[in-house]
Amino acid sequence: MVTDQLSSTFAALADPTRRAILERLGSGEKSVTELAEPFDISLPGISKHLKVLEQAGLIERGRVAQWRPCRLQAAPLRTAVDWLERYRKFWEESFDRLEEYLKEIQRKKEDRHGQK
Amino acid sequence: MVTDQLSSTFAALADPTRRAILERLGSGEKSVTELAEPFDISLPGISKHLKVLEQAGLIERGRVAQWRPCRLQAAPLRTAVDWLERYRKFWEESFDRLEEYLKEIQRKKEDRHGQK
Repeated sequence: MVTDQLSSTFAALADPTRRAILERLGSGEKSVTELAEPFDISLPGISKHLKVLEQAGLIERGRVAQWRPCRLQAAPLRTAVDWLERYRKFWEESFDRLEEYLKEIQRKKEDRHGQK
Repeated sequence: MVTDQLSSTFAALADPTRRAILERLGSGEKSVTELAEPFDISLPGISKHLKVLEQAGLIERGRVAQWRPCRLQAAPLRTAVDWLERYRKFWEESFDRLEEYLKEIQRKKEDRHGQK
């Protein structure tokens, strides 16, 4: 199945372990063993996740045989943000409505106290 | 399987048809039939996609029996952007490096022309 780049990016991010791996790579390149440390997952399990991230272009792996450090590649994340940003006006609108609603409640509360 | 909200959001976005459905809902609420129109997919196929979007909280459906219009709910997209924004410095750095590299090539090209 051919998957478009944006779908691969989102699919790779749809897993908490894979997101945690990217977060750890944010502080610099790491070996598979180093990456596996904080997780309760076998090395082959981590390798599977790394393969998904690599195929999505979110990490790059060194070519030295024993030490193949993983590095974060953030460019696909930028494309994902660009896609999501088109919806900013919608979430800002719904936030504005919520804010308006909370203000309205506050006003009613104050009116009631004023009447006492 | 219990899935966290962010994973559900990214999984729902990892499909071009589902993203296209959200794009169409950007112009206002629509019935399932209206949503299905531009796609070469059966109504049950579209309904499956809508279920994924609804479970991820990205759409809301009206409660009137025959006419159950779908509406965009953008709040989960905001959480997704918040997560991705932490990586902005990484993609900006790699963009800066690319820009520097292109400038370097341009300089070398101009030097060669200058030597002629």
